[in-house]
Amino acid sequence: MSRFFSKELSGLSPYTPGEQPKEDGLIKLNTNENPYSPGLEVEEILAGLSVETLRLYPDPECRELVSAIEEYYGLKPGQVMVGNGSDELLGFAFMAFTDAGRKIVFPEISYGFYPVFGRVFKTTFQAIPLKADLTIDPSDYYNADGTVVIANPNAPTGIALTRREIECILQNNPDNLVIIDEAYVDFGGESCVPLIDQYDNLLVIQTFSKSRSLAGCRVGFAIACDAIISDLNRIKYSFNPYNLDRLAIRIAAAAMNDRSTFESNRQEVIYTREWFAEEMTKRGFAVLPSKANFVFAKFGIAKFGQLDNEPAEETQSLRGEAYFQALREKNILVRYFDTEKIRDYVRITIGKKSDMEKLLAATDAILQER
Amino acid sequence: MSRFFSKELSGLSPYTPGEQPKEDGLIKLNTNENPYSPGLEVEEILAGLSVETLRLYPDPECRELVSAIEEYYGLKPGQVMVGNGSDELLGFAFMAFTDAGRKIVFPEISYGFYPVFGRVFKTTFQAIPLKADLTIDPSDYYNADGTVVIANPNAPTGIALTRREIECILQNNPDNLVIIDEAYVDFGGESCVPLIDQYDNLLVIQTFSKSRSLAGCRVGFAIACDAIISDLNRIKYSFNPYNLDRLAIRIAAAAMNDRSTFESNRQEVIYTREWFAEEMTKRGFAVLPSKANFVFAKFGIAKFGQLDNEPAEETQSLRGEAYFQALREKNILVRYFDTEKIRDYVRITIGKKSDMEKLLAATDAILQER
Repeated sequence: MSRFFSKELSGLSPYTPGEQPKEDGLIKLNTNENPYSPGLEVEEILAGLSVETLRLYPDPECRELVSAIEEYYGLKPGQVMVGNGSDELLGFAFMAFTDAGRKIVFPEISYGFYPVFGRVFKTTFQAIPLKADLTIDPSDYYNADGTVVIANPNAPTGIALTRREIECILQNNPDNLVIIDEAYVDFGGESCVPLIDQYDNLLVIQTFSKSRSLAGCRVGFAIACDAIISDLNRIKYSFNPYNLDRLAIRIAAAAMNDRSTFESNRQEVIYTREWFAEEMTKRGFAVLPSKANFVFAKFGIAKFGQLDNEPAEETQSLRGEAYFQALREKNILVRYFDTEKIRDYVRITIGKKSDMEKLLAATDAILQER
Repeated sequence: MSRFFSKELSGLSPYTPGEQPKEDGLIKLNTNENPYSPGLEVEEILAGLSVETLRLYPDPECRELVSAIEEYYGLKPGQVMVGNGSDELLGFAFMAFTDAGRKIVFPEISYGFYPVFGRVFKTTFQAIPLKADLTIDPSDYYNADGTVVIANPNAPTGIALTRREIECILQNNPDNLVIIDEAYVDFGGESCVPLIDQYDNLLVIQTFSKSRSLAGCRVGFAIACDAIISDLNRIKYSFNPYNLDRLAIRIAAAAMNDRSTFESNRQEVIYTREWFAEEMTKRGFAVLPSKANFVFAKFGIAKFGQLDNEPAEETQSLRGEAYFQALREKNILVRYFDTEKIRDYVRITIGKKSDMEKLLAATDAILQER
């Protein structure tokens, strides 16, 4: 740290993104990327890009992309904005909707970035524990002590709340904004976008990185009533007005318009996930019921949702880190979290079926070697 | 404003970017874009982009691009980082290098975003007036009361400090970080990058938007000693780790490697600027001595640097806004600022010589019509 670094932020510990390996030949199931290409419409846009316009600033309102999203969801003008990844939009939301009197409330086990945002934006936050089975109890968020943030489906568990459960949270927080982070919603969850016109305290954030196969393009979007979107834009225009480049705007718009690729990619992921979860269960893993493009699983615990601190039988135990390491040696990359209550688990992204077959074969070998 | 918006930020007034017009046929000289294409190397990269990798996250360290910048400037590893435009990096710097005890100090007339960053990041700031001739007095920044930010060349004046003058500011601020915003430095200013190894209180920020013809790509970079860069990275990894997309990383690296396009583009802009300034002077404009890709000029004042509040003779006056409007009616877009002391001026981006000839012809017509 330099001697000029903010004293107030000196305790900041940044988010650790999943490893982006440089070596070839790895099966990469660690950062929840989509195994399928974004499709033909994106390919055509990419092929038609011209160098000539790159010298000009992009449209700061990103109208081409905003219109595509409005059309997809049947929204009114003013209800959408886009960001340089959903992380940027979450950051803007932390800046816009907290102050000395308003903290942020989120689940204790969830997207690891929420507490980091809390620290970097000097926001007080409250982390609410999950239930013993790693689910969220909606009533824990009724009349919350500040702005609520819930990932739905949650990460890294993959477990989703229903739209009705979220609606109860909204109804029981008339004076609080409720942010629903729907990064993974297209893989089987129920989106809250249809509630936008009824609840002026709802902000939905989505991303092109997962179901739209564009993690490499850095595009997220926010949907809410126009007052909320206008608040987020005040932050954007006070920080980074041109936050999306010309290429990302065009490519993401093409991806939003390509409904058939989107549908077939997500159905394929859902199908593979259900099959894979069953295969893992057969092998003695407890697999949480996922509505995301990953599963969260631990070995050797018959009882679903058994807590970390209940000792697994010695002969059966295979800690998350050990399983991660054993897979890593077989050139398969997954993710584990060195965090209380979830140390036994690994998070496995759903890749192509052939990737998952290789992971299962590697797992069989690992289990035999023990 | 929604009822959820931060009370502390309720007075926030965002930055107003220059107009990005939708209509065709306009001569656009209002946002300091480069009139020339980024060149063949970028074109080749663009043509070779594959849709396949877009589904994968980009390298958060952006090594391909960072290496290209290191090589261009002969820097050591750890001295460079890149951002989603230089605005994002300036924002990170405001977050990293201020706290309750440390304000930000910058020139009163400069890049209009500095006070906006100050407000959105809740930083106390001090704006130091320019001299009557709209130049910066370096000694005003000696032993400053906080982190110093200076645009060099300054905007919207285009006037540059010498490297030696900046060095005096560095030497007289041993306990303060000095941020030099070199967005326009390649058009005739002296960069402070050669001082990096000598001063651990120097942070230089540059952009690909002007001299590298990539405003549409949103890429900026920061150069400093490794402790400062590491501080900025702590902010980045606490806010938006994947801040550059795959396409921007590759394209900007190609632009950095294409030295001949860069050299010929900037020489052409410098040549056109000098010729244009002379033509404007002949027509009765006072043109500030610019080292940027724009000029700041006002009509009818023989005395260079005469202040706004000294009344121009009635017959001679042509206020910045009136000149802007008259040009706008002739389909030429420039920029004026409704700000004390500079209301008489317009800022005119240096385009192709043919664009500037049209602007001169339009100006002749406007002057005759009066």
